[in-house]
Amino acid sequence: MHVMITGAAGMIGRKLAARLARDGAVGGRPVERLSLYDIVAPEAPAGFAGRVETRAIDLAAPGAARRAIAERPDLIFHLAAIVSGEAEADFEKGYRVNLDCTRDLFEAIRREGESAPYKPRVVFASSIAVFGAPFPDPIPDDFHTTPLTSYGTQKAIDELLLADYSRRGFFEGVGLRLPTICIRPGAPNKAASGFFSNILREPLQGKEAVLPVSEDVRHWHASPRAAVSFFLHAAMLDVSRLGGRPNLTMPGLSATVAEQIEALRRVAGEKAVRLIRREPDPTIARIVAGWPTRFEAKRARELGFTAESSFDEIIRVHIEDELGGKLP
Amino acid sequence: MHVMITGAAGMIGRKLAARLARDGAVGGRPVERLSLYDIVAPEAPAGFAGRVETRAIDLAAPGAARRAIAERPDLIFHLAAIVSGEAEADFEKGYRVNLDCTRDLFEAIRREGESAPYKPRVVFASSIAVFGAPFPDPIPDDFHTTPLTSYGTQKAIDELLLADYSRRGFFEGVGLRLPTICIRPGAPNKAASGFFSNILREPLQGKEAVLPVSEDVRHWHASPRAAVSFFLHAAMLDVSRLGGRPNLTMPGLSATVAEQIEALRRVAGEKAVRLIRREPDPTIARIVAGWPTRFEAKRARELGFTAESSFDEIIRVHIEDELGGKLP
Repeated sequence: MHVMITGAAGMIGRKLAARLARDGAVGGRPVERLSLYDIVAPEAPAGFAGRVETRAIDLAAPGAARRAIAERPDLIFHLAAIVSGEAEADFEKGYRVNLDCTRDLFEAIRREGESAPYKPRVVFASSIAVFGAPFPDPIPDDFHTTPLTSYGTQKAIDELLLADYSRRGFFEGVGLRLPTICIRPGAPNKAASGFFSNILREPLQGKEAVLPVSEDVRHWHASPRAAVSFFLHAAMLDVSRLGGRPNLTMPGLSATVAEQIEALRRVAGEKAVRLIRREPDPTIARIVAGWPTRFEAKRARELGFTAESSFDEIIRVHIEDELGGKLP
Repeated sequence: MHVMITGAAGMIGRKLAARLARDGAVGGRPVERLSLYDIVAPEAPAGFAGRVETRAIDLAAPGAARRAIAERPDLIFHLAAIVSGEAEADFEKGYRVNLDCTRDLFEAIRREGESAPYKPRVVFASSIAVFGAPFPDPIPDDFHTTPLTSYGTQKAIDELLLADYSRRGFFEGVGLRLPTICIRPGAPNKAASGFFSNILREPLQGKEAVLPVSEDVRHWHASPRAAVSFFLHAAMLDVSRLGGRPNLTMPGLSATVAEQIEALRRVAGEKAVRLIRREPDPTIARIVAGWPTRFEAKRARELGFTAESSFDEIIRVHIEDELGGKLP
């Protein structure tokens, strides 16, 4: 099987590529070839016996999607996107990257299939940002998508295209509305959602972290490992079970900041918790107040997608996957 | 006020232009100028004291939207689209007309506002085709849009763009999900929904009509007059009341074919009803089975949109507006 990943240099893309390289297969089907694309050249994952291409390509460039699809990958993980803050700051770039590139990719697949039969599986990284407040609690699977950001709008449009191109038979699409990924590895970033990871990741390594919101803030989380498992599960899903509605809200863990901190205390002790510094930031608090807090994710669970059921587990996954299995 | 209508040669566009010409105002604000555009030149409405331009323009042509918007209309009714059957038969044309032309128009408005402040009201003709079966009964306002046609997909995408461009402050958008319009004037057409109108319009004029489905088929209707009233009401709506969700399912009448026929009997007698010939068509029956049958339309009603409450009323509206107020 030939597997292509767009956005392969991003956090989830890298982990997904590493997992594919390590397993050498998806759902029992051997992977012979990996095509890893991003705006900067992704690193080749370690230990892969097959053929790997890592290429810096700008999917927004004319013909870029056509050339990538001319290689006829069997399975496409489409993760390339610019993040919410950037799409909000740069209106035109957001639509160009998050909408036009996705549509170009889908069009390239459709047109590739005009010359000779071609119907790859396309697994698309969507986001809970397709939803906008006010919300029922929990948010059911059939709740409307009324995004409050341009990023969420672009993802919601991509979902509609994915569903229509799938219905038309141009590819087998599955869209995954990812929860906020926690604990994100790496350095603290300035994304409004960064603190959800910062307040765990930094104290686990003996470093201070800033908490800009109150402890009763509730949000919807899954680990990077769970996110990778969503993509792999979607790759092998029987799409006839989707009933023409291929966009799925992924399962996750609904937890308050207080619950995150309690889990940190249980796993790493009081000394870790003491490294969290309260610095209320009304701007971040206001942004976060518009975010969803809890989903039913009933369809995805019934289709076999699973995520963590406690923050203790999310922290343990981080320690295993990022810290070599033990606290420093 | 300068009012622009795209799709002005269509059935609703013509009626809307005629009403604007007759009233000479919208919600008390005088209309000095009417710009009426369509792929074929619309007719100028009778009795308008102001300036009227009727022009055949292809909004899909490069620069067409920019030139139309350079005239800075204050109020834009965007009705131009190709119909569901055509969008399904010609995939590329559907996306070009129903998605790209709408996006071009929205972009033209955004860019026009870059040189000097410009923030028109945009009233967009959407459709209940944004919804796809299976449905709850009735369908609530917050039900997800999972269209089962490319036409519905394109309209759902346009709605998302309308909401984001409005949120960004580029214009004041209101999207109207129109019910099936009944009784459509004119000759019987081959649209799958045509029979809903045919079985009333034709017998009212002493002509035969074919009923291809069973009498228990239920659907969601409003008259052409009600549709025009939706557009005029949306033109003057206080958009701050939309709460960032500018796309509204319009009120309508949920009725079965049997209820339509009973109303015909009450208004035009048994001789009219006898002109309906049963000719079951499994293809049409299957298509119609996927259509929505009943909506709450709570938000729209609370915002002051109103439609007919009985088929007797819908038939009377047709007799008044199309048959000179009396049966032949």
